[in-house]
Amino acid sequence: MSDAAHTEMWEKLNLDISAHEGLLEVLGKFYGDIYLSQENRLNGMEYLDFVLSEVHGLRIKEIQDAKATGKKVIGTFCVFVPEELTLAANAIHVGLCSGADAGTDEAEKLVPRNTCALIKSFIGFKLARICPFTESCDLVVGETTCDGKKKAYEAFGKLVPMHVMEVPQTKTTDAKQLFKAEVLRYKEALEELTGVKITVENLRKSISVVNEKRKALQRLSRLRAADPAPISGRDALLINQVSFYDDPERFTQSINTLCDQIEERIAQGGGVVPAGTKRLLLSGCPMAVPNWKLPYVMESSNAVIVGEESCIGSRNVRDLVDDSADTIEGMLDALVDRYMKIDCACFTPNDERMVNVQNMVKDLNADGVVHYALSFCQPYAHEAIKLQDVLSQKGIPMLSVETGYSMEDVEQLKTRVEAFVEMLD
Amino acid sequence: MSDAAHTEMWEKLNLDISAHEGLLEVLGKFYGDIYLSQENRLNGMEYLDFVLSEVHGLRIKEIQDAKATGKKVIGTFCVFVPEELTLAANAIHVGLCSGADAGTDEAEKLVPRNTCALIKSFIGFKLARICPFTESCDLVVGETTCDGKKKAYEAFGKLVPMHVMEVPQTKTTDAKQLFKAEVLRYKEALEELTGVKITVENLRKSISVVNEKRKALQRLSRLRAADPAPISGRDALLINQVSFYDDPERFTQSINTLCDQIEERIAQGGGVVPAGTKRLLLSGCPMAVPNWKLPYVMESSNAVIVGEESCIGSRNVRDLVDDSADTIEGMLDALVDRYMKIDCACFTPNDERMVNVQNMVKDLNADGVVHYALSFCQPYAHEAIKLQDVLSQKGIPMLSVETGYSMEDVEQLKTRVEAFVEMLD
Repeated sequence: MSDAAHTEMWEKLNLDISAHEGLLEVLGKFYGDIYLSQENRLNGMEYLDFVLSEVHGLRIKEIQDAKATGKKVIGTFCVFVPEELTLAANAIHVGLCSGADAGTDEAEKLVPRNTCALIKSFIGFKLARICPFTESCDLVVGETTCDGKKKAYEAFGKLVPMHVMEVPQTKTTDAKQLFKAEVLRYKEALEELTGVKITVENLRKSISVVNEKRKALQRLSRLRAADPAPISGRDALLINQVSFYDDPERFTQSINTLCDQIEERIAQGGGVVPAGTKRLLLSGCPMAVPNWKLPYVMESSNAVIVGEESCIGSRNVRDLVDDSADTIEGMLDALVDRYMKIDCACFTPNDERMVNVQNMVKDLNADGVVHYALSFCQPYAHEAIKLQDVLSQKGIPMLSVETGYSMEDVEQLKTRVEAFVEMLD
Repeated sequence: MSDAAHTEMWEKLNLDISAHEGLLEVLGKFYGDIYLSQENRLNGMEYLDFVLSEVHGLRIKEIQDAKATGKKVIGTFCVFVPEELTLAANAIHVGLCSGADAGTDEAEKLVPRNTCALIKSFIGFKLARICPFTESCDLVVGETTCDGKKKAYEAFGKLVPMHVMEVPQTKTTDAKQLFKAEVLRYKEALEELTGVKITVENLRKSISVVNEKRKALQRLSRLRAADPAPISGRDALLINQVSFYDDPERFTQSINTLCDQIEERIAQGGGVVPAGTKRLLLSGCPMAVPNWKLPYVMESSNAVIVGEESCIGSRNVRDLVDDSADTIEGMLDALVDRYMKIDCACFTPNDERMVNVQNMVKDLNADGVVHYALSFCQPYAHEAIKLQDVLSQKGIPMLSVETGYSMEDVEQLKTRVEAFVEMLD
């Protein structure tokens, strides 16, 4: 696809062409520094490099071509929106831009300054007209997972067609019932938007597609238990990030191919870092593209990341949907069961997350945990304190980091992470 | 009650006697400066002065005496916990200390520093052992109205016996159903704790008691429409604050007596300030005792406060419970209906609050609105932006203030409020 064709497409989407070019330039440079500079990368990562280089190009072209045939596009920010329903309604399910400071001054007119960078970012990307995914959406689906997003969607809903799902705050039977009603309401909204009725057949197929995607990511996760680590945490994060943008079946196939290569590498005793390199679990808030700051800092500090306990990571991948039901009702119940297992800090008390983190540390042979909370993210800031308490009782070292998207604190972060890694036995 | 008897009681409650004495001293001085220095106060306020002076003394003695006869004490922080159920179970319903900086350093070990002052305060009061209400509680009932409280209750629950009610985030039929389940769960917890079965008879009585309390406060609110304002905003806030501590029937009677005096004063054309004094509506976050900073600043700036659009104010008072049902089921439905009318910023989109604020401005002949958000309170900070937008379209001036409990910003607040008042026509 030529540069001119790209530009023409972006113009049709009403992007701010010059601001968008500036964004791509910064992104390209950042990606080169953080990703392409890595040594011992697997061939299979070339696919990811390509997808990312064309994430605003060929992928948007695909989406526009699909829209031309009548397909609808659903944008989301959260793993609580059931992709299975979106796909069953023959629609495209994508994550929206939210991993970099953009349009911040304008965003701060709509939401308080004390709002986390992720929220300001998705509003800023919209106001600055530089996210072709947002501009391609027929519907944006939000959720009530934190005060910041819940209230920001009120402002965002004036800028895009918006549907908000209520995610409950506990996991009682009645709370699950509320979520089921919200899943049904989303199903109806999809059917109305797409004109496609969700049936046992198309839902069974989409449950299988999404389960297969999650299985491939689970396989990748398991392989990272090896020492030496066969793949960098940055690359693994990128894979998890791309899982929100790419065509799911193509993505699954690519990740399974990559996993084949990883298995070969492990069999040969190879790795991306020397055996014995300190192994860290990254835990906490989601990291959207191109929020690679902390992983880069960690992997430049004589350590390797072996798992992401995050929404863009294990929280999105750990649980599959039971595919044994053969009625719509049964399948929706299976979806509700699966989504209500998510151990998001939006729940109280969310003790299962404390257990899940410890299990990941054990399964992935991690030496310590770096907890990442976006500044002003109250749910994860609270759980950082709770997790530190739980882990210290088990003798698992944890470093608690709060940061946003600005590069101003990179040196300070590096000093703290290096000191933490040195302290690990 | 002698000083020695007070001290003996506080010792039995395991208060930190010396820290508690320090608190009472500061409070007494603060109350003198802000309350007793006012001119033209009504005689009826002497009752409130007395209640406040004995809020940690005689009121605690009453509560302890009641406990000795087997009564239970329920502590709350929020207007979503139905007082009607507590009273029906023959228990005492009180608000807990949360309006002053106390034990902050210790509290910040349990919750993030970026937590609002109200939350840090209730944890700090507990850790510093200076709230005799908290120490008298048989059960503390929390709710999921914001991320900060929801997650703080996880830590607080390790310090006190805790029951958390889920308050939904929307007002759909299914969300109301969830709240009804939570009301039932609270009813069962009360019955188990007190051994008292909640019946049509005792619930009818308690609905009446609480409705009468709200009616007295509504009456007070309506009288404040007069110009000159018959009562200061500080005194009205104090009345609303005391409504969370005092015996409800005694309180109702005292407020009705006070309202009789206010009616006389209005009939005589009298007021607490000269006619024509600029009239302000205070809107936003709740102000617990002794959080009188902003009201004092406002009323020292050539203005008078004519209404509190707040949980300690109109949000707690505006709606009555329909008392026409004659089955438990019907009465619980009436409770749910009433509580789900509350226009808290925890709901999305909460457009009814925008309408309610405008109605208060009109009904109380306010010249402008001062919006108060506790620093780091995300729900009200978001709604401040939304409300400013709505009010400016209607030509209603609004000043948006974010502050905590510290006195450091008093001069800065005064400068801003004075400039705002001068600007009103």
